[in-house]
Amino acid sequence: MKEKVMSRRYTLAGSLLVALMPSAFVWAGGVSPAPNGIALPEGYKDWRVIAVSHRTDNNSLRIILGNDRAIAATRSGQTNPWPDGATLAKLVFKDATHGSWKAATVPGKFVHAEFMVKGKKRYAATGGWGFARWLGPAQTPYGKDASFAQECYGCHTPMKANDYVFTHPVVLP
Amino acid sequence: MKEKVMSRRYTLAGSLLVALMPSAFVWAGGVSPAPNGIALPEGYKDWRVIAVSHRTDNNSLRIILGNDRAIAATRSGQTNPWPDGATLAKLVFKDATHGSWKAATVPGKFVHAEFMVKGKKRYAATGGWGFARWLGPAQTPYGKDASFAQECYGCHTPMKANDYVFTHPVVLP
Repeated sequence: MKEKVMSRRYTLAGSLLVALMPSAFVWAGGVSPAPNGIALPEGYKDWRVIAVSHRTDNNSLRIILGNDRAIAATRSGQTNPWPDGATLAKLVFKDATHGSWKAATVPGKFVHAEFMVKGKKRYAATGGWGFARWLGPAQTPYGKDASFAQECYGCHTPMKANDYVFTHPVVLP
Repeated sequence: MKEKVMSRRYTLAGSLLVALMPSAFVWAGGVSPAPNGIALPEGYKDWRVIAVSHRTDNNSLRIILGNDRAIAATRSGQTNPWPDGATLAKLVFKDATHGSWKAATVPGKFVHAEFMVKGKKRYAATGGWGFARWLGPAQTPYGKDASFAQECYGCHTPMKANDYVFTHPVVLP
């Protein structure tokens, strides 16, 4: 009986908390949002592939996925600029060597998942993109405060002519 | 009027042709089947990602995708052996260098798409997997006759303890 009352109290407290929070701070799947309020996109693991890359400067393999709007944009060639709502995910892994094929570099430790959410007006201060990153399997939000996005934006600025996106989507037959 | 009659004739001829063809030889999306009768899996571009790899012996980047059954298997850890019907796609690209980030290797020319279809009994002669490969953007079937699959099987034999699969699926949070 006591357990039930406790449970009800926690539920009530939780509901009030959610009701009082601005939408930017609602947790998605138990993962805290980025300091700029962007929530981890739900179901990103089920998004379709846009490209892959291998960086030898920091020894990492990357899988780039896109939400439905991003995939539609790549297939119709509408990626400069990308349409509002298009979201790109970059999943980054440290290099590992395949146990049975030494010349193959394969994904090792999961480093982080990075996202770019297109919102021309909403994110005008950072090139029309909202940036967010969650670290490691614990999915800890990156950045002490919202200013972290300036770091992302700065790194992406050389790609301004490509709507700030490094990835060139692969074309599949 | 003449056009309509012609059109009806072609439709009839087409229907008869399809009815007379063994299922193995039905074209999928206009692409010829592999010499062992395996048809190009429809919609493989929309499959979800399983892994990525970079081979420095032949300078290629690979995207490994799986059909729904393969994805379900990876997420429940049922990949040794994989369940019947699980299908893996490996999309292979020649290495290219990113124009604005020289330390990044990115997908260049599309080389081929390779598939492994699990069928423990059906493909018992090749480790329980049906192999197929289509070359380049033209999607030309690989192999002069059905014996080509022995070449695939031979290369995959060192991975027998992993159900003949080189790919270790990534684990995402």
